[in-house]
Amino acid sequence: MPDASPTRWHLAHTTWFFETFLLKSVPGYQIFDERFEYLFNSYYNSVGQQFPRNRRGQISRPDLARVLEYRYYVDERIQQLVLTPDCPLAVRNIVELGLHHEQQHQELIFTDIKHALFGNPMFPSYHQASGAKECAADMPAARNMDWHQCDGGVVEIGADEQPFSFDNETPCHTALLQPHRIALRCVTNGEFEVFIREGGYRQPEYWLSMGWQIVNQEGWSHPLYWIPMGDEYREFTLCGLCELQPNAPVCHLSYFEADAYARWAGKRLPTEFEWEAACRARSSGEAFADHLLDSNLPVHPRCEVLTGSENWLGNLWEWTNSQYGPYPGYRPVAGALGEYNGKFMCNQFVLRGGSCATPGEHIRPSYRNFFPPDARWQFSGIRLADQPE
Amino acid sequence: MPDASPTRWHLAHTTWFFETFLLKSVPGYQIFDERFEYLFNSYYNSVGQQFPRNRRGQISRPDLARVLEYRYYVDERIQQLVLTPDCPLAVRNIVELGLHHEQQHQELIFTDIKHALFGNPMFPSYHQASGAKECAADMPAARNMDWHQCDGGVVEIGADEQPFSFDNETPCHTALLQPHRIALRCVTNGEFEVFIREGGYRQPEYWLSMGWQIVNQEGWSHPLYWIPMGDEYREFTLCGLCELQPNAPVCHLSYFEADAYARWAGKRLPTEFEWEAACRARSSGEAFADHLLDSNLPVHPRCEVLTGSENWLGNLWEWTNSQYGPYPGYRPVAGALGEYNGKFMCNQFVLRGGSCATPGEHIRPSYRNFFPPDARWQFSGIRLADQPE
Amino acid sequence: MPDASPTRWHLAHTTWFFETFLLKSVPGYQIFDERFEYLFNSYYNSVGQQFPRNRRGQISRPDLARVLEYRYYVDERIQQLVLTPDCPLAVRNIVELGLHHEQQHQELIFTDIKHALFGNPMFPSYHQASGAKECAADMPAARNMDWHQCDGGVVEIGADEQPFSFDNETPCHTALLQPHRIALRCVTNGEFEVFIREGGYRQPEYWLSMGWQIVNQEGWSHPLYWIPMGDEYREFTLCGLCELQPNAPVCHLSYFEADAYARWAGKRLPTEFEWEAACRARSSGEAFADHLLDSNLPVHPRCEVLTGSENWLGNLWEWTNSQYGPYPGYRPVAGALGEYNGKFMCNQFVLRGGSCATPGEHIRPSYRNFFPPDARWQFSGIRLADQPE
Amino acid sequence: MPDASPTRWHLAHTTWFFETFLLKSVPGYQIFDERFEYLFNSYYNSVGQQFPRNRRGQISRPDLARVLEYRYYVDERIQQLVLTPDCPLAVRNIVELGLHHEQQHQELIFTDIKHALFGNPMFPSYHQASGAKECAADMPAARNMDWHQCDGGVVEIGADEQPFSFDNETPCHTALLQPHRIALRCVTNGEFEVFIREGGYRQPEYWLSMGWQIVNQEGWSHPLYWIPMGDEYREFTLCGLCELQPNAPVCHLSYFEADAYARWAGKRLPTEFEWEAACRARSSGEAFADHLLDSNLPVHPRCEVLTGSENWLGNLWEWTNSQYGPYPGYRPVAGALGEYNGKFMCNQFVLRGGSCATPGEHIRPSYRNFFPPDARWQFSGIRLADQPE
Repeated sequence: MPDASPTRWHLAHTTWFFETFLLKSVPGYQIFDERFEYLFNSYYNSVGQQFPRNRRGQISRPDLARVLEYRYYVDERIQQLVLTPDCPLAVRNIVELGLHHEQQHQELIFTDIKHALFGNPMFPSYHQASGAKECAADMPAARNMDWHQCDGGVVEIGADEQPFSFDNETPCHTALLQPHRIALRCVTNGEFEVFIREGGYRQPEYWLSMGWQIVNQEGWSHPLYWIPMGDEYREFTLCGLCELQPNAPVCHLSYFEADAYARWAGKRLPTEFEWEAACRARSSGEAFADHLLDSNLPVHPRCEVLTGSENWLGNLWEWTNSQYGPYPGYRPVAGALGEYNGKFMCNQFVLRGGSCATPGEHIRPSYRNFFPPDARWQFSGIRLADQPE
Repeated sequence: MPDASPTRWHLAHTTWFFETFLLKSVPGYQIFDERFEYLFNSYYNSVGQQFPRNRRGQISRPDLARVLEYRYYVDERIQQLVLTPDCPLAVRNIVELGLHHEQQHQELIFTDIKHALFGNPMFPSYHQASGAKECAADMPAARNMDWHQCDGGVVEIGADEQPFSFDNETPCHTALLQPHRIALRCVTNGEFEVFIREGGYRQPEYWLSMGWQIVNQEGWSHPLYWIPMGDEYREFTLCGLCELQPNAPVCHLSYFEADAYARWAGKRLPTEFEWEAACRARSSGEAFADHLLDSNLPVHPRCEVLTGSENWLGNLWEWTNSQYGPYPGYRPVAGALGEYNGKFMCNQFVLRGGSCATPGEHIRPSYRNFFPPDARWQFSGIRLADQPE
Repeated sequence: MPDASPTRWHLAHTTWFFETFLLKSVPGYQIFDERFEYLFNSYYNSVGQQFPRNRRGQISRPDLARVLEYRYYVDERIQQLVLTPDCPLAVRNIVELGLHHEQQHQELIFTDIKHALFGNPMFPSYHQASGAKECAADMPAARNMDWHQCDGGVVEIGADEQPFSFDNETPCHTALLQPHRIALRCVTNGEFEVFIREGGYRQPEYWLSMGWQIVNQEGWSHPLYWIPMGDEYREFTLCGLCELQPNAPVCHLSYFEADAYARWAGKRLPTEFEWEAACRARSSGEAFADHLLDSNLPVHPRCEVLTGSENWLGNLWEWTNSQYGPYPGYRPVAGALGEYNGKFMCNQFVLRGGSCATPGEHIRPSYRNFFPPDARWQFSGIRLADQPE
Repeated sequence: MPDASPTRWHLAHTTWFFETFLLKSVPGYQIFDERFEYLFNSYYNSVGQQFPRNRRGQISRPDLARVLEYRYYVDERIQQLVLTPDCPLAVRNIVELGLHHEQQHQELIFTDIKHALFGNPMFPSYHQASGAKECAADMPAARNMDWHQCDGGVVEIGADEQPFSFDNETPCHTALLQPHRIALRCVTNGEFEVFIREGGYRQPEYWLSMGWQIVNQEGWSHPLYWIPMGDEYREFTLCGLCELQPNAPVCHLSYFEADAYARWAGKRLPTEFEWEAACRARSSGEAFADHLLDSNLPVHPRCEVLTGSENWLGNLWEWTNSQYGPYPGYRPVAGALGEYNGKFMCNQFVLRGGSCATPGEHIRPSYRNFFPPDARWQFSGIRLADQPE
């Protein structure tokens, strides 16, 4: 799976980020190992060539001990840099960006480990056995599907650069919404199973043409981590193989599956602007993921009854039907860091909301995540939208 | 090239369209050849399986004589059907759709023949020799780049179903434009050559990530039909190999190249809404392509000085930076004809304006064409946009 | 199918062979069209670059009329050359080679047309309707499997250069045979059907590892041109779709299938030396294919009862278990013509005997044909061998 | 690289071999972990499905500790089995086969680690630094190329089953050799460098057609582990990156390269029978590899002057021009173990002699190794042969 990387690589790459964009320009700084520049560059062409992504898993050296040494070495020097009394704002901004970058990789470590363990026919568990029980715990019934009504009109979308936002959330601008309604909870496993049992994966009329091609080519007939056993499904989670929880939100869907489900249900996916406006109107802003961590619960999305809130943030990445593009007047950051977001504005769809694997501080209503429409290894799910009643 | 089909296939497929969506439901109609249902279905899953697209060129039977027999057979019965005094509106609407469908394939016949001849190392000419001279005729210098200024605001976008429009142009709806300006002519070969000579194809900072990958993988270093000879370029046209005309509009570009050029030029591509609003404001509505036909000129785009107008319609398909998606409240036509447009709303960009190969009656300001961002075999070019001065 | 070429290409390529290896060195010879050197070179690196094999089918020009013009032009000049009183032996030898080369392509025209028509879901017939009846005519029952016994020992293998042989049949040399027996007829459709019905294509123990991989990857479950219809099979022939003749020899098998069948039958395939020794001992030397032509019969293999002989030559290419390599002391012809045979001595198996599509004069006991073990589009079948009783 | 596996996999697979083919049929034996049957089956279809070879490197569990546990568990029970007073011969034969199987994987561990480290742009060393010096030690000049002359005639080839041989070396049989001569040492790095500098990799006339295709496709221009640095080459060895030793034997060549070199040199590769006859005539039977181990020298081939013998065994796998096939009367072992050798008799060439990584006891004159002609990751080199002077 070329999208996933080993944990050791994530640890080294996030360290490389700080070294490359901060320390290398500090006078007198001694580069830890010249060869890491190539080895741990992800996609920054302005910095130089990159070690091929699909071979990251094949590199046995530097081993973990050496990578940790690298981290301590760089961390120490970054701390010195930041604590310098006259540390300029530009430097502090890149440190902040580096921390947010690291948070993104914290999430990827979860999703990549999950994918790697799933590729093992023994289905190993990431969490301890006790956690496994938690994942399998029977969730209470989901509530009826309630809706947030919106009359449309011009709204403010996006973020200012302060406190922190990625460049792709800027500039703050106006957008025109049409009247619509948007669901107050995500689609559940149980609801999605009806779609499957009624032949959803076998009927081309629900699918985008490209999605239908992939369904047939790859033989998709259920979400990524579902495993048919006799007449039922099990679900692979970070607690190993579990019974499928009908009331938990369905996750690890591609855009194609989310979109096909919505069409089958006579609904549609929201635009990213509809989503953002609704989130601002309804959410307390608290991310549900923090709660998981505090409670020592396994990393897995939960239904809104369990959490007692609408779960706009920190439960599931929710596919929107907005293709990922620049906001009016968008300008990427100058220099190599401008490669962070802008160059991916093509053939990707926007996801909103952050997942149970996203660090809680990392997510906000204006946050735009993006993945190609066939990507399934993130905790991604469905919130429906519709014309107003 | 899986995108292109033989002329014989186009002739049979457009006939199949009329037979399938009209004649098959006429009581007593005798199907011409049952096996054509499979052979000449392009992508209508609701109708049935399709003969694989990439094998269309390998089928030697039915031969041309038999396909023409098919056309006469179907044409005759369609005429009878339409001339029936009480022919219902629904039938007449499908006939109209079938005619517009045929016009689309008329255009594809040009672009597919051009591509096939280009694949032949002998570079045969489609037009007679006299035409060749026309293509090579030195075009007058392009005008300065003038701009249409727009203050932004809410505009009407799209078409009603009457007189005729495709479903993807509907419903008519409001959109919010930001202030901007949009060029009054397209970028020329000469201007694009500067981009090449200044290293545009070798500098990743101008390119979307996916575009940069293709540039390297495919070794792109100039537009599709340009051929380097010594220090200069020649251009393959439907008149064969010609000298490159610096003042003609550059064409046969992918979205990636159009977008990279715009970034290099410090500009951007227009959104499809900006384009539509400007076209409505400036264009007479007359398509330039008709003029070519009337004047017996070769099928090739021309500069605006030659044509004496701004060439919004019928010269070049102009890439917009809008990814192809549904308009608010969009509903595809019911039944198999609903597969016409909606299922392709993914990983494609919108092009506007119609090209010199588009039948003149076929194009209009609200018309939305769409291709994947790496497609180059259509007559596609660049109109720049920008923030207002 | 990259192995097959259009008829027009065969006609041009065999002409190119004469022009390239003979006429180009004649003083004053005017090359017909310089661009053909590249276009119709098959694989002679010493001559120059070659137009890609898999794109041969995409070239619409030169059209048939122009290719025939080319043939007349070259033929005329070759005749002049040969009729020159003092035409040197070296020249006459290349003319002879060119004629044998042309005979090889005569065979390929049949097999390539058959393959192209098979790719058409309408299954067009090459022969007229009357021929179709012939192919479908019920063949008399095959005889019991009789055997030619051989005690082994040292035998002469190969050919001298006179009268004519390809370089890969030389030098004539001794080989040591072990005692064995070899069948007097080929395996029939009926016998092969038993192999299929007893699960031959589903049991890995009969298959070479690489064969088993292809069986699974390509979903092979019967010979190339068999088509399951209900409980039975039909066979596509040059007469179109026919009933399967149980007593006709099974054909269009890969080496993998021939070898698996032999293993299932508790036998093996002969070595090419065993085959050659048996053919010399038993065959009159007359090729059966000539008989087909004389009798205006369709091009298809027949059972030995029909032909009244053992059919060693001119019925089916018979797979041997000998991998194609050089004879001891083998030296390819000098110069570009040395690329004819020697450079293919790798990952191919030898076939002996010539098929019903091989011109009768072209085949002889020492003739070595060779194809990769997965090739199926030639008229290839099975003759069994075994340890002596 | 799908041919190479992680060390952990080799350890588990060889253990699996003993468990599967011996312990599973012992009454009362408790299988260590049922899931290992699938996970560590290499290619035995009779045993069941196999975990895909190209994903072996992606499995992080069972980890090393668990695999070693598996080994101790199985080893202990095998010892009990063998020490049983009435242990039947059939069982002891499989134990012996299992040990030879394990020796083969001991060699693969070296070659696979070497390949993995080479894929790392940091070029880590397997041996300690002192070893690195050894690899780089300047070797004495190679001797002139002397030859073993052979008049041809009938010779005995192959092995009896006793003491031990693999089934593919049997049955012992006669073969007819033509007069020839065969070199007394292998080709050196220095000699091979002349081939490179004279354009060997750029001239198609030296190459088999399939080899030439790979050379161009993969951009081969030197042996696998050579790295051009300025005007010179370095060689990656198990001691890391070293200076190229001109007098050491050239290694890590494909058949295509060995064959092209021989053709360029006006020679040829020996047949496997010529090689076996010469080895029997000249070699003491002692494998050079044992000497390396005893002397604590790095695993790398050496020139014959250093070793003081002709190095027929235990230095380099030597490509022969014999394609790998069955000996006359060959019968694979019955049952699943029959999949060991016979099913690979297709599209592979025979290598003889064993390499510096082969355990010394494992190799013998009749031993037949086999690899596809493009395989390069084994210690494989060139011994020339020729017609007699």
